[in-house]
Amino acid sequence: MDVSEYIGASKERFFADLKEWLAIPSISGDPERSADVRRSADWLASYLRGIGFPTVELWETPGHPAVFAEWPAADPDAPAVVVYGHHDVQPVEPLDEWETDPFTPVEKGDRLIGRGTSDDKGQVFFHTLGIRAGLAASGATAPPVTVKLLVEGEEESGSVHFAELLRTHRERLSCDVVVISDTTMWSEDVPSMCTGMRGLTEAEVALYGPERDLHSGSFGGAVPNPLHAMAALLTALHDADGRVTVPGFYDDVVPLTDEERDLFARLPFDEAEWLRTAGNSRAPYGEKGYTTLERVWARPTAEINGMWGGHTGPGGKTIVPREAHAKISFRLVAGQEPGKVQESFRAWVEQNTPPGVRAEVTIPGGGVRPCFSPIRSAGVQAARRAMEKAFGKEVLFTREGGSGPEADLADILEAPLVFLAVGLNGDRIHAPNEKVEMPLLLKGAEAAAYLWDEFATALRSS
Amino acid sequence: MDVSEYIGASKERFFADLKEWLAIPSISGDPERSADVRRSADWLASYLRGIGFPTVELWETPGHPAVFAEWPAADPDAPAVVVYGHHDVQPVEPLDEWETDPFTPVEKGDRLIGRGTSDDKGQVFFHTLGIRAGLAASGATAPPVTVKLLVEGEEESGSVHFAELLRTHRERLSCDVVVISDTTMWSEDVPSMCTGMRGLTEAEVALYGPERDLHSGSFGGAVPNPLHAMAALLTALHDADGRVTVPGFYDDVVPLTDEERDLFARLPFDEAEWLRTAGNSRAPYGEKGYTTLERVWARPTAEINGMWGGHTGPGGKTIVPREAHAKISFRLVAGQEPGKVQESFRAWVEQNTPPGVRAEVTIPGGGVRPCFSPIRSAGVQAARRAMEKAFGKEVLFTREGGSGPEADLADILEAPLVFLAVGLNGDRIHAPNEKVEMPLLLKGAEAAAYLWDEFATALRSS
Repeated sequence: MDVSEYIGASKERFFADLKEWLAIPSISGDPERSADVRRSADWLASYLRGIGFPTVELWETPGHPAVFAEWPAADPDAPAVVVYGHHDVQPVEPLDEWETDPFTPVEKGDRLIGRGTSDDKGQVFFHTLGIRAGLAASGATAPPVTVKLLVEGEEESGSVHFAELLRTHRERLSCDVVVISDTTMWSEDVPSMCTGMRGLTEAEVALYGPERDLHSGSFGGAVPNPLHAMAALLTALHDADGRVTVPGFYDDVVPLTDEERDLFARLPFDEAEWLRTAGNSRAPYGEKGYTTLERVWARPTAEINGMWGGHTGPGGKTIVPREAHAKISFRLVAGQEPGKVQESFRAWVEQNTPPGVRAEVTIPGGGVRPCFSPIRSAGVQAARRAMEKAFGKEVLFTREGGSGPEADLADILEAPLVFLAVGLNGDRIHAPNEKVEMPLLLKGAEAAAYLWDEFATALRSS
Repeated sequence: MDVSEYIGASKERFFADLKEWLAIPSISGDPERSADVRRSADWLASYLRGIGFPTVELWETPGHPAVFAEWPAADPDAPAVVVYGHHDVQPVEPLDEWETDPFTPVEKGDRLIGRGTSDDKGQVFFHTLGIRAGLAASGATAPPVTVKLLVEGEEESGSVHFAELLRTHRERLSCDVVVISDTTMWSEDVPSMCTGMRGLTEAEVALYGPERDLHSGSFGGAVPNPLHAMAALLTALHDADGRVTVPGFYDDVVPLTDEERDLFARLPFDEAEWLRTAGNSRAPYGEKGYTTLERVWARPTAEINGMWGGHTGPGGKTIVPREAHAKISFRLVAGQEPGKVQESFRAWVEQNTPPGVRAEVTIPGGGVRPCFSPIRSAGVQAARRAMEKAFGKEVLFTREGGSGPEADLADILEAPLVFLAVGLNGDRIHAPNEKVEMPLLLKGAEAAAYLWDEFATALRSS
């Protein structure tokens, strides 16, 4: 029985088991669901024991528990792989927009509908079928690489204890590659792998002028107006080519390779349709010399998220206001360090504040580092072969705009990342009526089954 | 008995009468004080009859009544003068900051403290003493010019019915000059006359981008951000020299004459002290080539009064916001028409809105026209002579930043304006503990007494 046949024979049971897990409302952001998050961890631990994982543990955190399971390779020199996913889910509000109960998973055609079907229980679960299919096809009792499953319980509430968890269990999690199964493909027909996620750092700027609002009839035009200064400052943040002017901002950016740009360009991207999904935006916009996909995936940005000052209520109030505020966020890409960008921005604001205005820059937290896995790396190439074998067609590459705990995995475990996932942008994750395409979950299982052999070869020889 | 002797002999009675009027809480903005505003008008009308005005009338409006009093010159060909002031007062909140009851006028040294002492009952009242002093000194039974006192009751609540009142009584108010007694002098030691008030027009700009707030991780850097567009638009409103860039903005501006600039420069202006009063502003600022006084008095400005958009609450929210807003006001000077500036600004916003962003400009009302009385005009020169005679020293010139119904007086009555007033910037008008310097009110009366002779000569021959 080959991998595909095993999966075909197992699918009914597979979805029945998954539905049991999905029925547990493991909403990590809701304190009243704490017991359910633990129940979800227990359920998964018990299931993993049942399918043969020799080691299964609940790893406690000050918040919700993670599940760790290890299946060592027979060969002690075989590469080790950490597979990352999460068993907690998003809240379900607004409940009245759900067509079915979020925690009573329902099949409609090829779709399985319910909270967590795509993000991320369904995608964790395909690995359980993948590993069994691989063993069934090979007749072995252990996978060709050591598989370490790490399924956290706090991803949807900020992964607040995750870095600490990784540091605590660093030895046990030592590995040659980290597989992330919490992203999406381009589309059902265009299998693809994510190769990076943008990082983030935020800043709030306050500009202060006079100590109180002044009557603009008496003082207007003769003292600095902090709103004018803020407008000028924020305008100066980009040059005429849409590039960020903070000195050194691009210095560490890993440039897009021609190969990656070519592969991006081969994606069937409909810009008009994309603009419609972008709130019916009227025109594309951004850094000169890059396509829309390159701009959102592989280029760093500075975005004003909010701005306020002076009189903002109804009617007029002819004042020179005492202060102006703005919230700014920077999306960062491979190579950029949030801390370095923060310091450059702080210095830039100081240098660009006009005389008579005082600036204060507040930076909330350390930011999120970007993560990146170069398409020419051995891990990515191996995973691409596994996916191409499962899907029977060429696999392209994407990146994603958001980012979660992936950078911590890469940095703390000091291992390259590989993204293997079968979610779709249309899965309505974080929204009502979340769904997953069941045939894609089975393709994911198939790719996962092939992945261990590919890794065993590629990572040993690398 | 000359003017000065008459005033010296009458002052006790003058202040006793004024206090009676000040005790009436004629707050036009407070509907519960309507009866008091009328009582104030009645009191004044009765007083004016008592001192000999042949004609005294209450002029009704849909709001509060004005008082009109006319004392014709003996010579039917003599010039006619309208004297403008108001008998209503500002509210008194915050009451607990008053050291004495606002409507129980109290003398402390040279000061008379109470609501309306400076703005404007005290300054209206010095005319009643001035006209009597002039008659006493000349021995005549009528003034050398026809004096028409117009004392409105709604100035502190926006003069909403004033233009209509002027149009209704246009014939009765026909005159050769309008004397405004509702402004200030440079200081107690530096008598001066105001020669103009800036006008005003306001606008609100809304810029619209995507139809909803977008996730900046997914869309940031690839669609237009209305906050960026707003910052750029507002920055483009001024050039590097601090000049407003709206085409034609300066076309109709009456330039400052060298004489007026020289006279401004002779005022003992302490810029450091001025910056302290400007909310401790840290540096002067504004249109290149002009002094601080020229900037606030005689140059038009564009000022951002408020600006908002996107996330303005606590914490971060990494969005590309759907819209941005700003409130802008233009201070206008002699020659500029609010309507023309409004239309130019509307067109300028349209032309400066980037692709992918939609602009909406809302203009509330028609604005306030500036007013201006050239220092070389016969009326201003005559009034200056009268003031110099009263004060015994050179009279300089100022302008003021605010503006009230003065432009309506000039436009509807088609007469030049002359500002004769003895208030001080330190009189705390509109604030707790409003006061007037009693010796200055008496100087005002003396100047008013001389004014009619000066006008009789100057305006007849002009």
